[in-house]
Amino acid sequence: MTTTVSAYAAPAAKAPLERTTIPRRSVGEHDVLIEIKYAGICHSDIHQAHDGWAEGIFPMVPGHEIAGIVAEVGPGVTKFAVGDRVGVGCMVDSCRECDNCRAGLEQYCTGGNVATYNALDKNGEPTYGGYSTHIVVDEAFTLRIPDGLSLDVAAPLLCAGITLYSPLAHWQAGPGKNVAIVGLGGLGHMGVKIAHALGAEVTVLSQSLRKQEDGLKLGADHYYATGDESTFEKLAGSFDLIVSTVSAPLPFDKYLSLLKTDGALVNVGAPEEPVSLNVFSLMGGRRSLAGSGIGGIRETQEMLDFCAGHGLGAEIELIRADEINEAYERVLTSDVRYRFVIDVATI
Amino acid sequence: MTTTVSAYAAPAAKAPLERTTIPRRSVGEHDVLIEIKYAGICHSDIHQAHDGWAEGIFPMVPGHEIAGIVAEVGPGVTKFAVGDRVGVGCMVDSCRECDNCRAGLEQYCTGGNVATYNALDKNGEPTYGGYSTHIVVDEAFTLRIPDGLSLDVAAPLLCAGITLYSPLAHWQAGPGKNVAIVGLGGLGHMGVKIAHALGAEVTVLSQSLRKQEDGLKLGADHYYATGDESTFEKLAGSFDLIVSTVSAPLPFDKYLSLLKTDGALVNVGAPEEPVSLNVFSLMGGRRSLAGSGIGGIRETQEMLDFCAGHGLGAEIELIRADEINEAYERVLTSDVRYRFVIDVATI
Repeated sequence: MTTTVSAYAAPAAKAPLERTTIPRRSVGEHDVLIEIKYAGICHSDIHQAHDGWAEGIFPMVPGHEIAGIVAEVGPGVTKFAVGDRVGVGCMVDSCRECDNCRAGLEQYCTGGNVATYNALDKNGEPTYGGYSTHIVVDEAFTLRIPDGLSLDVAAPLLCAGITLYSPLAHWQAGPGKNVAIVGLGGLGHMGVKIAHALGAEVTVLSQSLRKQEDGLKLGADHYYATGDESTFEKLAGSFDLIVSTVSAPLPFDKYLSLLKTDGALVNVGAPEEPVSLNVFSLMGGRRSLAGSGIGGIRETQEMLDFCAGHGLGAEIELIRADEINEAYERVLTSDVRYRFVIDVATI
Repeated sequence: MTTTVSAYAAPAAKAPLERTTIPRRSVGEHDVLIEIKYAGICHSDIHQAHDGWAEGIFPMVPGHEIAGIVAEVGPGVTKFAVGDRVGVGCMVDSCRECDNCRAGLEQYCTGGNVATYNALDKNGEPTYGGYSTHIVVDEAFTLRIPDGLSLDVAAPLLCAGITLYSPLAHWQAGPGKNVAIVGLGGLGHMGVKIAHALGAEVTVLSQSLRKQEDGLKLGADHYYATGDESTFEKLAGSFDLIVSTVSAPLPFDKYLSLLKTDGALVNVGAPEEPVSLNVFSLMGGRRSLAGSGIGGIRETQEMLDFCAGHGLGAEIELIRADEINEAYERVLTSDVRYRFVIDVATI
């Protein structure tokens, strides 16, 4: 049994997104039917719609930054009721049995988690994302959006927010720690807000000083242009933690030289091509190059609660559904401050 | 005031080592004069005598795995007395003021530490290493070799031992942890012994099974050939910690796939050329690629005490000084089980 709902989909790789209809499964025992209000546009939506990472499943309905209202619940649902404000992020299921799932690290599920779109669910049906009027999700992968956090600025927290919160929390950004965020885009601007709220001293490392005023307003204490070579001399050995949000390959040896002893450079942006570095850059000062992917369900709820408590939402540009293709073009030229969010009422 | 002592030195880059004499400073306020009994041959001795890393200071007396007996102490020396069994490792001084020095991490001294050879000391004089009958070292950089640890098998602990002990201790190898050691040479064989003594489950990853019997005797629980592709499938996601002792660039993506979530691949071997990897190999499972260099003075003493307590010395081939050049050739073809140690009485 399925229901048909409206959505915006890419009919084929690289094709413009267009209005269409897609099936949603009927509400099962532990399912929640969500009336989607807002869906953020993540850079990875474009990667996947353009088939940049791997062979995609088309038609593809992107969107894994979803905020809405519960419209119906299955008989076994205990955590949510009709009318609740909820969100869905990058995953809608996982094996729930592996060590990682049991530890609340479903994002690293070794049995294979189910992505919110461009994946096959446990019944072998394709998943469709948030550029759509409704979605049906197991309550275990549904998040509560606290009161006081508007749904439009909350939507991007489900990917951009948790992607930065998770490494900042894991590598213990906080009072007394010097943290740099590389890149001030959709991910980076949330990194600045969250690291600042965690109590760290925050530096933005951006190619130019073009967004300096924004960066300082968002909570950065310092702002440096990486296009200026003197930045790397001035900041040598400065940071406990650097989180890189850029998907272009960085000159890692230079960035690693900015770390203190025992510092870590954590990538949440993912260059498609291999990167290169000198091992001596790691050995001098016991430094680490690491990676982090989104966050687990429990941690995502913790992040939403933290953001609500600190009044943190994303900086957004609200668009109509028929502006999605134009928005994609603008994301590709970094022309967005700082996240496009689709008003799903316009689908 | 200096004293002249016998030594083996490389007169120029790539030239064979030959017997010569070198000056040693007179014993200062906080100095210890050590009559050297044994000096290990470290792969990095060969690198530096061959000028592989940077422009060397010649004549060069290599050797930073030094064990001997205190022959004289300066008036301000409080930790050592004539007749004490002592060792010297890779450093003979540091700035003693930076955060790292104050934290006991003199190996990462930001003011610049003084290497035991091929460096300039604080007076601008070249330092000469352990292929020599005597050395004068500040007591702060002199280690105590506990009774029960023979000086010949203790010498290699001063570099090979601490280089492995430090990352194994820092990344908490111990009961319940799966640790892999890549390469079973001078460094690797100490890694196996120490990781086993720390209580970890130890796997050797070596190109072939040629040294399997040795590896198991040294304390490894498992031994796999990395030349066999099926090894990477069998061991996927197995290790909490991998310590790589090889100085050839590894196919890092394959080795990173062997780590559990939150696992670290730590390099103590240093390829001269840049290495390449895919950032996705780090993001899947929040993995780290890290580096570690020797260890601090306090930690080196801790390592010596640990090794003495567990009856751990290096496996050595004792050679005469006139066999050094031949030994260098054999190290370059990995034909040593597992460390050459010079009997300094033959210099």
